[in-house]
Amino acid sequence: METGKLKIRKQLLEQEKISYAMDHVVLPDGGIDCSEGCNPYGFPPACECALRSFDASRLGPYPHSQALYEAIGSFWEDIIDVERDNILLTDGSMSALYIVNNIFDTHNAAVLGVSPQFTDYYMHAQMIGIEYMPYQLSKSNNYRFDADEFVTMIDADGPDGTSCNYIYIDNPNNPTGQCIDIADIDRIVSAALSHDITVIIDEAYGDFMPKENSAVQLFAKYPNLAVIKTLSKGFGLAGMRVGYIIAHKNLINYMNKMTNPYMVGELSREIAAAALGCVYFVESSKADFRKMKSAIKAELGCCEERPEGGSGSLHIAETLDTSSICLLYHDDESVNLKKEFYERGVLVVDGNDFKGLDINSARVRMPVIDEFPVLLAAVREINAI
Amino acid sequence: METGKLKIRKQLLEQEKISYAMDHVVLPDGGIDCSEGCNPYGFPPACECALRSFDASRLGPYPHSQALYEAIGSFWEDIIDVERDNILLTDGSMSALYIVNNIFDTHNAAVLGVSPQFTDYYMHAQMIGIEYMPYQLSKSNNYRFDADEFVTMIDADGPDGTSCNYIYIDNPNNPTGQCIDIADIDRIVSAALSHDITVIIDEAYGDFMPKENSAVQLFAKYPNLAVIKTLSKGFGLAGMRVGYIIAHKNLINYMNKMTNPYMVGELSREIAAAALGCVYFVESSKADFRKMKSAIKAELGCCEERPEGGSGSLHIAETLDTSSICLLYHDDESVNLKKEFYERGVLVVDGNDFKGLDINSARVRMPVIDEFPVLLAAVREINAI
Repeated sequence: METGKLKIRKQLLEQEKISYAMDHVVLPDGGIDCSEGCNPYGFPPACECALRSFDASRLGPYPHSQALYEAIGSFWEDIIDVERDNILLTDGSMSALYIVNNIFDTHNAAVLGVSPQFTDYYMHAQMIGIEYMPYQLSKSNNYRFDADEFVTMIDADGPDGTSCNYIYIDNPNNPTGQCIDIADIDRIVSAALSHDITVIIDEAYGDFMPKENSAVQLFAKYPNLAVIKTLSKGFGLAGMRVGYIIAHKNLINYMNKMTNPYMVGELSREIAAAALGCVYFVESSKADFRKMKSAIKAELGCCEERPEGGSGSLHIAETLDTSSICLLYHDDESVNLKKEFYERGVLVVDGNDFKGLDINSARVRMPVIDEFPVLLAAVREINAI
Repeated sequence: METGKLKIRKQLLEQEKISYAMDHVVLPDGGIDCSEGCNPYGFPPACECALRSFDASRLGPYPHSQALYEAIGSFWEDIIDVERDNILLTDGSMSALYIVNNIFDTHNAAVLGVSPQFTDYYMHAQMIGIEYMPYQLSKSNNYRFDADEFVTMIDADGPDGTSCNYIYIDNPNNPTGQCIDIADIDRIVSAALSHDITVIIDEAYGDFMPKENSAVQLFAKYPNLAVIKTLSKGFGLAGMRVGYIIAHKNLINYMNKMTNPYMVGELSREIAAAALGCVYFVESSKADFRKMKSAIKAELGCCEERPEGGSGSLHIAETLDTSSICLLYHDDESVNLKKEFYERGVLVVDGNDFKGLDINSARVRMPVIDEFPVLLAAVREINAI
């Protein structure tokens, strides 16, 4: 039974896929999950009401509900007008990434990204034959994103004779949870436009930053900008697979040609629409994440001069306190940070699952605050290794 | 605001998309819908039970339920053993098509298909730069698929210096609803294997043919076969977006590299698993479709010598009586068949939305039997035009 001779893309034959999404989630005995990117607080109660009141006969026909389009419009109306033809619904934001990767010319093409960033994104780009040219966040700069440095890379050559066709930035960054200021995003999109380059801003964790920092406010200003949103993180609906893209109607039209109008099921549309009305829910999660991250920073001895930590061996990369995730890294390169956390009852994502990081780092998602003592105790012990 | 200079695939810039899925469904006043491909009888009652008993806390985490994998295994166990690594879950079968189109080498590549067939499929292939080389069903042969003719095309040259990289067949065929015998499918897959060509069998309407005719029974025999299934048609769950692919584990592995393990939401998995236990539901739909199609054939004067119809001007293409759809065509090429049906209270799909067909043909999906008199009266009148 030989499949190697079939006319499969060589990347699929040759390249292994790295994805923490494919890991089997096994909690340590009596331990806590700080690995999955969903909201540990679940989702707004209004979602359960939408579920319980859903007319079951709507399971049958293809999804035609307009409720989610309207809810998206209402959600953004205090920032900017978003019309129906500026929106593409997607099955989670991962489906959005596949569509985005597919609309650009693939001939001698590279995508300029940031390393580390969401692994599944650039793996997909590579699998369809697009070279990945990452701007490397520097440990010596505590993994802080530098917009000035990044802008200089826009017209740089990619590997193997390729050149940058488009740009992918996750904001906040995954795994660090740091936030790029909207003024810097504006500058990057503007610079990219002068090179006819499109910028994809993936705001999967974007509901954890101030709404005013979202690139959505720029979409009407720039024809070369697409913003990816999901209901899986802040609004906690990972199980329902709801995402969307906001962009100039021409870009949305190209994406429409790569997909179909039935993305996001009928019930998912209703539940997501209910969630978007519950901004208080995300604000409450953010307040708790801020408390927990502040406690971690205090434990590590972070201060203005040493924002990454004090005299211990564990450090925290640049991060936004209200976002749910952060990157911790250990001075000793032989320390397997995921393993150390696991032995202390905390499941985290291995740094090794991100390009440019190693086993002595880990992505840690804040738990619910009741479980936080387990995480803080683990941080304390590992900081003393 | 110019997007034309961005490095978008030229196909997206130049090619219009044809898709009846993108049509806005507007029923004629007091009329009936014979257009959407979903099951007019809805879905099995067990699905509503699964919806009502669903633990809402599961909306939050990423989908990890194994219930659907197990239900798929149980569904096929009287035919063949299907293991977990032979299955890829997809958000409806449309997502399956996008994945399948993305796993093959695109250099000088063509896909051999059948015309007419599901329009959205080949439009997507073309959008990502794959040439479409269709085997044309012949009106003079009442659009009957001829496996002998088809096999000779496997090593034919495609357009513009391309050659056939893979084959796409929908069985039953959309729009005719005809069924290709499993012995012919076997012969095609075997012939394709000798040319290292993969065969995609899209059984979107497959639950309306005998289970024994499914290509699923062949997947362990052929490493070059992938079978696409959906819960949207026979099991009537179009609103929940559930599909899956069954293939050799190597092919599934390539497809996994193009996607993520979170396809199909948690609730959709549970509801789909409940549906797959209700084979009686599909059998009951099939029995009614058979009654309706027989009545249409009788009305048109079909007989052994003239299976497409008698002395009237309306004809029915080769079709399987238990499948939900059929293709009707009118002798007068100036007759707009969709319009004629619409004026008689019946919404159908325009033949023009399929390659190789024109406005004097239409895809008609059987309604519930209580609504059938409206359809039959329209058929009678149009046959007399």
